[in-house]
Amino acid sequence: MIEPASVPLSAATRVVGVIGDPVAHSLSPRLHNAAFRAMGLDWVSVGFRVDASSTAAAIAGAPALGIQGLSVTMPHKEAVASLVACTPAAQRLASVNCVTFGPNGAEGDTTDGAGLLAALFRQSGFVASGKRVFVVGTGGAARAITAAFGDAGAAEVLVLGRNADRVSRTAAMAGAVGRPARTEEVTGCELVVNATPIGMAGQPTDGITWPVDPGLVTPDQLAVDLIYHPVRTPWLAALVDQGVPVMNGIGMLVHQAALALERWTGEVVPVEAMWAAVADPSDPGPSV
Amino acid sequence: MIEPASVPLSAATRVVGVIGDPVAHSLSPRLHNAAFRAMGLDWVSVGFRVDASSTAAAIAGAPALGIQGLSVTMPHKEAVASLVACTPAAQRLASVNCVTFGPNGAEGDTTDGAGLLAALFRQSGFVASGKRVFVVGTGGAARAITAAFGDAGAAEVLVLGRNADRVSRTAAMAGAVGRPARTEEVTGCELVVNATPIGMAGQPTDGITWPVDPGLVTPDQLAVDLIYHPVRTPWLAALVDQGVPVMNGIGMLVHQAALALERWTGEVVPVEAMWAAVADPSDPGPSV
Repeated sequence: MIEPASVPLSAATRVVGVIGDPVAHSLSPRLHNAAFRAMGLDWVSVGFRVDASSTAAAIAGAPALGIQGLSVTMPHKEAVASLVACTPAAQRLASVNCVTFGPNGAEGDTTDGAGLLAALFRQSGFVASGKRVFVVGTGGAARAITAAFGDAGAAEVLVLGRNADRVSRTAAMAGAVGRPARTEEVTGCELVVNATPIGMAGQPTDGITWPVDPGLVTPDQLAVDLIYHPVRTPWLAALVDQGVPVMNGIGMLVHQAALALERWTGEVVPVEAMWAAVADPSDPGPSV
Repeated sequence: MIEPASVPLSAATRVVGVIGDPVAHSLSPRLHNAAFRAMGLDWVSVGFRVDASSTAAAIAGAPALGIQGLSVTMPHKEAVASLVACTPAAQRLASVNCVTFGPNGAEGDTTDGAGLLAALFRQSGFVASGKRVFVVGTGGAARAITAAFGDAGAAEVLVLGRNADRVSRTAAMAGAVGRPARTEEVTGCELVVNATPIGMAGQPTDGITWPVDPGLVTPDQLAVDLIYHPVRTPWLAALVDQGVPVMNGIGMLVHQAALALERWTGEVVPVEAMWAAVADPSDPGPSV
């Protein structure tokens, strides 16, 4: 990490932030503040630690305080979806990661899926339309990206998970092109995405080593791990050793934040400046 | 003014601020942020523009958002006094300029009067106990300092104003030692304070030139103008020409903010660093 954003502040500075609990390790303020600096905007982003019982008070209080927008992270994504007017994408996921306080009230949106699509295109030139995509996982991130791949015209979105019911519900996010998958079907998919916590720092391994056996993935495929801590998971490292092009989760993180800032400011957001604010100097970067 | 505070920020940074409308010209964030830097605290202060109809939502939302404390300025000081538990001082004034969000809820206090007493002692070694004090004005600031002089053991607090009823109510803030005054009674008071807007930048003069005729004030008295914009009002300038020691309102501004920060952080606050953050380089400084 480079040094935290150094922001000039006055009482005229507009305020945005991220709500979560815990929130102290969120990278959102760092990303937002880097963008504001590069944009020359007198805005600032801070972290608001909001406990699960205070979501409604926080969402009601934020616009009263003149706060322009909030990123939303755990444990509030679902609760916020029931508190604000949602975009169709957020409504389908019943999950909000971004609230914009406008003249017509609070609007909730989800920018994770679109963030991943933007990162895939920027880092790898990958376009989901017409492609077969393999998603591992059934949590909130898996549902968000499965929906986004469906919306983007993927030919098929295959979902792998341990719980058949959760797999079905996740696959349904992609509409008609989503379906549960068996592991070996990863062969023949252009893109493989790990949306599980397997390989995340501090995450118990639970006896599971890989989201998908790296031996099943080949150099003509693209592999993405939504994890960015560590910068390179054991899975990505194994794939790199085999010559498979890989991307970690920093791109999705940066682009979902950029999309939130676009909604709040109405301006074009400098993604490079945000990237620089969170990229680890030891990060080998995308291998594509 | 020196450059606005440059504050390193992350999602772990604790948030305080000032609510008001307008709020853009408030010096509170600048004062607070200068103190946080000098104290080595990872805290930040911002301005929250809260319109008069949203006071309650803002005060309810702030602790939900994990905000530690709020300075309160126009038009919210009276409304907030009815929304939170007040200290006796704030209750008597029915006015709050500082809210602390603690484990037992929100507590409203008033630090303007104590701020002026602290500034008087620091800048001039002035102690109100046993002194005769002459206050010009009947607004919120006049009431706050009249109460503080009474609490500090002033022998007499004389209040001058145009509206007899308002004068009586202001003088009553000092209890038994407060009383309405005639202009010529300024003679014999150790301290004269202008708590009216006469001489404030952008304020219509209304045909009134002076809070008190400068010819009535002598070099053995101390004169204070609560105004700090301009740094030296025509009244203070006339008094300086006569050799009267004077103070402007920067000291009260700085010390009331320092007292707020003490309540929020529980730590000793570096007043000098705050002073440096708002002192105008062209400020000749206290003439005492």
